[in-house]
Formats: sequence, C-alpha cells, structure tokens
Amino acid sequence: MQFTPQLPDLSHPSGMASVSEIGAATEEALVHSASRLATPALVIQAAVVRRNISRLAEYAKRHGLLVRPHTKTHKSQMMARLQLEAGAVGLTVAKVGEAEQMRPTGDDLLMAYPAVDSARCERLAEIARNGTLRVAVDSRQAVDALATSACGANSVIGLLVEIDVGLGRTGVGTPEETLKLAQYISGIRGVRLDGILCYPGHIWAAADEQEPFLSTVSSRLRAAQALWSEHGLEAKIISGGSTPTAYQSHLVQGLTEIRPGTYIFNDMNTVRAGFCGLSDCAAHIVCTVISDAVKDQVVIDAGTKTLTSDLCIPARESGHGFIVEYPEAKITRLSEEHGQVDVSLCTKRPKIGERLSIIPNHICPCVNLRDVFWWCEPDGAAVSVKINARGMLS
Amino acid sequence: MQFTPQLPDLSHPSGMASVSEIGAATEEALVHSASRLATPALVIQAAVVRRNISRLAEYAKRHGLLVRPHTKTHKSQMMARLQLEAGAVGLTVAKVGEAEQMRPTGDDLLMAYPAVDSARCERLAEIARNGTLRVAVDSRQAVDALATSACGANSVIGLLVEIDVGLGRTGVGTPEETLKLAQYISGIRGVRLDGILCYPGHIWAAADEQEPFLSTVSSRLRAAQALWSEHGLEAKIISGGSTPTAYQSHLVQGLTEIRPGTYIFNDMNTVRAGFCGLSDCAAHIVCTVISDAVKDQVVIDAGTKTLTSDLCIPARESGHGFIVEYPEAKITRLSEEHGQVDVSLCTKRPKIGERLSIIPNHICPCVNLRDVFWWCEPDGAAVSVKINARGMLS
Repeated sequence: MQFTPQLPDLSHPSGMASVSEIGAATEEALVHSASRLATPALVIQAAVVRRNISRLAEYAKRHGLLVRPHTKTHKSQMMARLQLEAGAVGLTVAKVGEAEQMRPTGDDLLMAYPAVDSARCERLAEIARNGTLRVAVDSRQAVDALATSACGANSVIGLLVEIDVGLGRTGVGTPEETLKLAQYISGIRGVRLDGILCYPGHIWAAADEQEPFLSTVSSRLRAAQALWSEHGLEAKIISGGSTPTAYQSHLVQGLTEIRPGTYIFNDMNTVRAGFCGLSDCAAHIVCTVISDAVKDQVVIDAGTKTLTSDLCIPARESGHGFIVEYPEAKITRLSEEHGQVDVSLCTKRPKIGERLSIIPNHICPCVNLRDVFWWCEPDGAAVSVKINARGMLS
Repeated sequence: MQFTPQLPDLSHPSGMASVSEIGAATEEALVHSASRLATPALVIQAAVVRRNISRLAEYAKRHGLLVRPHTKTHKSQMMARLQLEAGAVGLTVAKVGEAEQMRPTGDDLLMAYPAVDSARCERLAEIARNGTLRVAVDSRQAVDALATSACGANSVIGLLVEIDVGLGRTGVGTPEETLKLAQYISGIRGVRLDGILCYPGHIWAAADEQEPFLSTVSSRLRAAQALWSEHGLEAKIISGGSTPTAYQSHLVQGLTEIRPGTYIFNDMNTVRAGFCGLSDCAAHIVCTVISDAVKDQVVIDAGTKTLTSDLCIPARESGHGFIVEYPEAKITRLSEEHGQVDVSLCTKRPKIGERLSIIPNHICPCVNLRDVFWWCEPDGAAVSVKINARGMLS
C-alpha cells in the first residue's frame, strides 16, 4: 500500500488546470480555475491511463488476442480513441445510446447486450448502416427483432450467440443451444452469424486461483465450437473476458478477443481482488471535508450520488472507497451527499476544508454520475473531458 | 398489496404521450412517441404526486407547521412549483448547484448542508443577493467562510445551527454547543442567526413506534432553545423532519417547519417501513424483459445505473425494487445494466419484450441518474419533464 498520490494540488494555484469547455485561454485563467475546482471532482491521471492501456495491449498482442474494450467504464470518446490508437480492434457497449455516442469514434462496435424491442433494434439497424455493428443474442425473439429492423433499414447486423459460462445472467445454457440458435440465425436475412460471446463475470478469484473457473469456460466454448464446426458453421469471433480475468485470457482456448472495461481506470474492486496495485488506479474522486462535529469522524461532500452504494466485491466490510491520504481511515456510511469517515485509527485528523482523494469501490457507475472528468497530465495541467455516454440508459 | 397500476399502456398506441422537448405537435406524432417510449423510463403519476403533496400540506396546516420540501428527490423546477403552489414556505437543497437550479422557482431557499470552501460560499453569497438564502452550519469554519463570501458579495446569508439528534453525521453534539455557535454567529457581519436545524434521519421506526425517538429530539431542541433564550438569542426557525417522521412532526415540540423530500414520490423504503401504501408510490421505472435464457429467471434492462445498489432500509433482503405486475417476483441481483429477476414463485412468467413497472427501493438517487422523467396525467397523456438539478454534485 505504498502509493504516492501524484495529483496536482487542487487547493493551491500551483496546480494548473485548463477548463477546455469554458475555453480558458491565458495562464492566469488556468491557474484561477485550478484553485477553485469544485468538489467532488473526478480526476483522472493521464499517465496511469496510458500505462494501463498499453500494458493490456502488449499482453493481448503477445498472446494473439484482439482487444475490444468495454466503454461502459469511461463513456468517453476521448478514452475510446486512446484505446483504439493502442490497437483495439473495436469498441464494446451495453446500450444503444452508448453505441450512438461511440459511433463517431469507432467504426467497429459490439453491443454485448440483448436487444429485443423494436425501438432499440431500429436504432441499432441505423447504426449498422455506417460501419460494423454486432449484437450478442440469447433468444430467437432477439434475432427476429434485429433481423426485421435490419431489413427495414437495409443494413446487416452481425450476431454473436451468448453462452452462459457460470454467471447465470444472460446466455443460453448449453453448447447444443448455441448450435440451435446459430442454425436459426444462419437462415435469416438481415443478420449475419459471426460467432460466440461469453461473459465470465462470476470469476473474482485471484489471478492464480482462476484456472479451474477458466478451464470450465474453455471446455464450454470448445464444445460449442466443435458442434458448430460439425454442422458446417463457423464461429469466426469468440469473444470473452472482463477485467478480473483479462490477464489470464490466454488460458481460455480458442478465444479471439477480450472485452475488459475497468482496466483503463481500475478501482478498489480490482485492487482488493489482487488484480492491480493502488498505483494502477487512475481515477480519484477529490472531495472536501465539510464537518468534524462528531468525535473520531469527519464528513466529506461525497455520498451515494458521487460514490454509489456499490460495496467492494472482494471485501464487503472495507467501507465505501479508499482515502489515499489517510489509508487508516474508513468511509463507514454514505447518505446521498454525505460520506461519514471513521478517523479513529488515523495518526492525524483531516481538517475542515481539507481535500481528500478517494479511490472508489467501483469506478464505472461513479463516472456515469457526472458530465465531465478532469484529465491530469503529469505536469499538473488538467483539462475537462466530456463523458459522452453519461446516462445513456436505453 | 392490492395495487392497481394506472400506467398508460406504453407498448401500444392507445397510451398517448407528448414529448414536450422535441415539440411533437400533431396527435399522430403523440401516439407514435408513446408506443416507442425507450426503456428504462421513469414514469411519474401526476394524480399520485398531487395527492401526496396536498396530504402533507393539509397535515402541516392542521398542526401549524410550515413545509420546506427537500428538492433532492425530484430535482425538478416543475415539481418544486407544485409544492410551492400547495403552500410550501420555501425549498430545501443539499448542494449549491441544486440551489442555483431552484432559484428561478423559489425565492426562499435553505441549503441543509455545510459549506466550508470559498468556491461554494462565493456561489451561495451570489444566490443570496437575489432572495432569501439560509445555510445549516455546525462549525466556526463554515460561519467564517460564509460570512467572508457574503461580505464580499454584499449579501447576507441566514444561518441555522445544526444539532445532531441521533444520526451522528453532522450537527453539533449538545445544546450548549449550539449556544456557543449561535453566539459566535451573532457577532459576525454577513451572516444572520435564524435558528436551529436537525435531521432525524436515523428514525426508521414505524409511525406508532417513533414516540421515544421523537421525544429525545424534542428535549434536545427544547434545551437548546431555552439556552438561547436565557442568553438573549432567538431561534425564529426550528427546522426538522424527513419523510419517515413527517406525519409525527406535531409530536416534536417547538418545530416551526419540516423538510421531507421523498414523500412527493415515495418508494419501497417508505412502503416497507409502513409510512405509505403501494398506491402512494408515484414513480415507476418501466423496463423491458430482455432475456429468459436461465430457468426461473428473466432479465430486465434496468441495473444499478437505473435502480442504484441502494437496498431497502427496512427490508434488506427484499431485493432491488418491487415489480408491480408480478408481486411474487424478486429482483435478486443487479449488474450495471441488467436486473436478474427470480420468477419461480410467479404463476405466470413474464415474456421477452414485456414491459414491467418497478417501484425502486430509493427513488431519490434513481431520479438523479437521468435527464428527464415522464409526467403522466390520468388520461394517459405523458410529457417529458427536465430533471434540472440532475448531477449537481457541488
């Protein structure tokens, strides 16, 4: 836990920031806006993001895997561009609104999420007119709905058949069912059978304990692929992966691409599960101590409307995030706009007005709660970046 | 639990809706937009809102209490206007951005939240130039910061001294401390001593079991008021209340006003704690069944980015919201965009593509996740309403 925060000092004019959105131009203006950055602010360390992106890109290249990062984490065109520049083959989204926001940046999109209603499918068919679009399906209803819309829009949507590999959320249950759905798809106009998709979202074991889980994933994917092959169908794409299993993806035989999302920023979920260190966490929520009226406690201006109620999956009792400057402190309770911090174990007590940097338990929903984040270069310059797909729920 | 949902049928053209924001004008356009309302949609029943507002207004009038509703729940100027039209004396907010959004609607605002940094205080001092603004304080630092900004802006900010009545979050700990802070305030330019504020947010006992809690609140407020009076200070305002204790506020002696927020919409927190019935819940999240691949389960297009991870405070094991059409179903698990629903106890299984109406555990953070909600009149007409203070974190 020897993490030296490299945040610009946001409480003093020496921490320079430019607010791109309000077009601050002179150096004086830049300094002024930095000293007044309103909290709670989401501050992203550019250097850490670049390192996280290139580390995964190198791993994937070494193992012959393509990367299709999930943009649900950052929801930002600028972050997607960095990922594509580092060699990502395309982008992943969960919702149609996200796909619409990411289309200007990426001409190869995968919606790893079912679409069954005509409103969604028509928007997807429109997106498919301007580049590659694939959608994961686990029902004939989804296939029919997508095909109808694609035919109407004169476009083609690529389909990946989702197979459940243990999470029990979406995805058909057996390799045989993937075959049935694949055969159904291959007879229908407007859609194109492209492969198989799985989401191993249940694997939160440490990297060196993932092997039994991953071998189950492997054998399911292999069985499905073999069945398809026997029946003359090809799974050109076998798409898997999420951040916890990202660096073990080479252990899953047959995988062609991975779709991690959180790895770009990381959070206390990935830290406490042992997938990365504190210094790999690019996203800090900078907040202000607003009260110290209660003994052994301070209150910060970040509650569930900033940090969400998401607990830390591998350490549910660890509180609502990690305070970089006070590692012994514990965020014990959140209201909507208040965070109660137990400081009884701290050698020094944070003062009213002091700014603290929090690494949240789960970064993805925190990003979704705001319109912009602050992109900080190592020299201290900070630029506001729009979170383009914020609140794109449908 | 005999609740008949009065939602317009959003899947058929007969459920009319006008999209005010896109300016749909002809009847054909209205019908068209209703049948395509994208899910997950937040749909608000106008009739229930009106009843909830007038019920509280009548109760307060009967007991000589003023109502200053907390706008954090709806974050909407239109809802605030309805509350003011029903006699609310002013509006409550938590953050400065909310105050700025509510100022056009309300000329009497209370920020029931500490402000200690110059950025926030300067914005507040500006707001105070155009009408009444009060802020709750629990430290000398807050008083100094607000006073400095108010003097700089040539405005005056009214202050309420917050006393902790059991939650242990913010507020000074004893009546004696309220006196000390009140005396400090009364000697400082730019601020005006207006009274005492408390937040009984720890009281989740049923209405008929609240008396012991409320008598503690009473005695603390009485003691503080008596001390102030002995020292020649007047607490013109004694502000308390939240939704769970709203209808027991007359049991707290000396209270001049209450600040409930949730009562306008209600949610499963208020239902399961026994404060209201299902038919008093004005806010439904309409979502779509997107998968039924797993036995005894369906998946809806609403996860934590729609419903949040907030558990139901009085019934933590009750799942992530109540499905109106399937009372026996249980939303067992949320991912960011998926809701897994156990339907094993349902006599009928929801179909893929079917729309379901969910009453969330905690409505306030759900409203904050979106830009608009749909305001439905009993005749089925639906208008989109902007959530003005959405994402106002600072």
